[in-house]
Amino acid sequence: MTHSTTQNRQWILRERPQGAVDERHLQMGSVERPVPAAGEVLVRNIYLLVPPAMRLWMNEEDSYVPAQPLGEPMMGITLGIVEASHDPALPVGTYVNGMGGCQDWFTAPAAQLMPLAPHPGVPLAAYRSVLDVQGLTAWAGLHEVCQPQAGQTLVVTAAAGSVGSLVCQLGAQLDLHVVGIAGGADKCRWLREDCGIAATIDYKAEDVGARLAALCPRGIDMVFENVGGPMLDRLLERINDRARIALCGMVASYNGGGTQSAHALMRLVTKAARMEGFLVRDHFHRYAEVAAKLQALVLEGRLEYRIDILDGLDQLPVALENLFHGRNLGVQLLRLSPERGA
Amino acid sequence: MTHSTTQNRQWILRERPQGAVDERHLQMGSVERPVPAAGEVLVRNIYLLVPPAMRLWMNEEDSYVPAQPLGEPMMGITLGIVEASHDPALPVGTYVNGMGGCQDWFTAPAAQLMPLAPHPGVPLAAYRSVLDVQGLTAWAGLHEVCQPQAGQTLVVTAAAGSVGSLVCQLGAQLDLHVVGIAGGADKCRWLREDCGIAATIDYKAEDVGARLAALCPRGIDMVFENVGGPMLDRLLERINDRARIALCGMVASYNGGGTQSAHALMRLVTKAARMEGFLVRDHFHRYAEVAAKLQALVLEGRLEYRIDILDGLDQLPVALENLFHGRNLGVQLLRLSPERGA
Repeated sequence: MTHSTTQNRQWILRERPQGAVDERHLQMGSVERPVPAAGEVLVRNIYLLVPPAMRLWMNEEDSYVPAQPLGEPMMGITLGIVEASHDPALPVGTYVNGMGGCQDWFTAPAAQLMPLAPHPGVPLAAYRSVLDVQGLTAWAGLHEVCQPQAGQTLVVTAAAGSVGSLVCQLGAQLDLHVVGIAGGADKCRWLREDCGIAATIDYKAEDVGARLAALCPRGIDMVFENVGGPMLDRLLERINDRARIALCGMVASYNGGGTQSAHALMRLVTKAARMEGFLVRDHFHRYAEVAAKLQALVLEGRLEYRIDILDGLDQLPVALENLFHGRNLGVQLLRLSPERGA
Repeated sequence: MTHSTTQNRQWILRERPQGAVDERHLQMGSVERPVPAAGEVLVRNIYLLVPPAMRLWMNEEDSYVPAQPLGEPMMGITLGIVEASHDPALPVGTYVNGMGGCQDWFTAPAAQLMPLAPHPGVPLAAYRSVLDVQGLTAWAGLHEVCQPQAGQTLVVTAAAGSVGSLVCQLGAQLDLHVVGIAGGADKCRWLREDCGIAATIDYKAEDVGARLAALCPRGIDMVFENVGGPMLDRLLERINDRARIALCGMVASYNGGGTQSAHALMRLVTKAARMEGFLVRDHFHRYAEVAAKLQALVLEGRLEYRIDILDGLDQLPVALENLFHGRNLGVQLLRLSPERGA
């Protein structure tokens, strides 16, 4: 079943996964296309972002958002187009970002949507990825949490990921010594050849501790951390005095398990170092400014990014599986419907 | 063998302990009393501080100080009295703080020693405990790292310890809701009855998670952390948005083992919270100011403290053992020689 103008396909969370997500947990259903109420607009979702955090939302415990309720359509971060409007502020044909859910259609009041003015030189999908939450996350973690100083050493984990690859490039532009850790020779080559990152570590093929020793001869001043687990232990073992570890995510823990070595964490004490989580929502007041800066970099060809687009809402389980096996390259999106025309 | 005017007993680190310290690792030897060179003074150690970190110094890996070398006298933080002087700045009879080692006597240039002017209303031992490193550590962790705001909730672990008990009291004086976690009914009673801390948790007898839920109905804004391990996991599970965790130590890791739950650490991300190590050495520029404030509080009877004094240099292994079993109440000191007269 593909996209329809009368039906609304929805992924429903039926059961909370303990480990990996499969068809027991997420099931696709279909209801009638919703009708916008007074003051609302009808949006056709075009792109659905599939971030690692989506797995976290499925847990029983609240995360930075309330836990996804069982039996209801999965939350989803989407880019869509207004197809019917009861609000003159958002005419038909306007592209909007919103929390549109893992579904084909949704209705919402205009105040809950962010209208977009896509530049013709930039792919539409970039507005739900590099120029959006990923870009702001990279910027906030690097500038606000890591507090970079030129010449210092920054290590980025999940470096070929949607946020990590931006952090690597923004860090290099600040004259930091950037080391990117990614899984696989292809990702590392992409970081070196296309993103201009001098030093990479392929954690699937190389000894991370030994490579860090070789590539960070002056120790580690900053970590942009997406992974957690033993890799974080290796990083902590090499931090310098007053190091800053920006915790963007700890994907190693999302499936429920994982430990950190208390011995490695003790390095925070002996190095008077700081490990700090941050949420992009605390930085939305900088959104317009940062998005404009990033768009300018993209148009100048100074910011490389890759968007991994799978076609079809039905590919959500595949997309999640890819994410947790590191098979995606860059931001993972699903394309639910054509960019133009219904 | 007791203190002598001709011999200098010394604890020598013979072997690095993996777990607990015993006679294989630390052995007492004796050499001739040292003679001060030109510009040096001879100091008779009176009090030797036995902090939990002493165990950490014995590990092969450098901590916040270089690792203790094997075959040499153990580093030690002492208060002593000048018994011979080749420097007019430190006449005979001056009390001094210094890194005098786990031994009876040492020589040093005056510049390496801090002369004391003990107030007659304050016990001498307080100048190598509550009014010294412990006081400055408590003050720096509370003010600089926790950044307290009146009405917020502060949880202190090892709350009956040398630093923790000061943090509890200083926190209560800032109108924080203070919850102290300590091991044993006696320690908890002391915190409540003598230190004026309303809420305590006896981790040896009570379910820490359940008690935290009851005693911190508005969640946890600040943690002054000395312990690590499962107790820290329980604390992380209850932190509020933008919580601050001041890592003073993680005594659970000093013997080499211990893990933290990655799931609990992930709360740092979802709460945009900060876990920050700190070292008292970074705050020595505030030493005089903070020591004066604390001495005033002691003289006004507004700062309760306990000093656990064992008599004799030979008691070092016992003192270490007591520390790691939580048998000490307050700062652990050894008295090596009389306060006055040789």
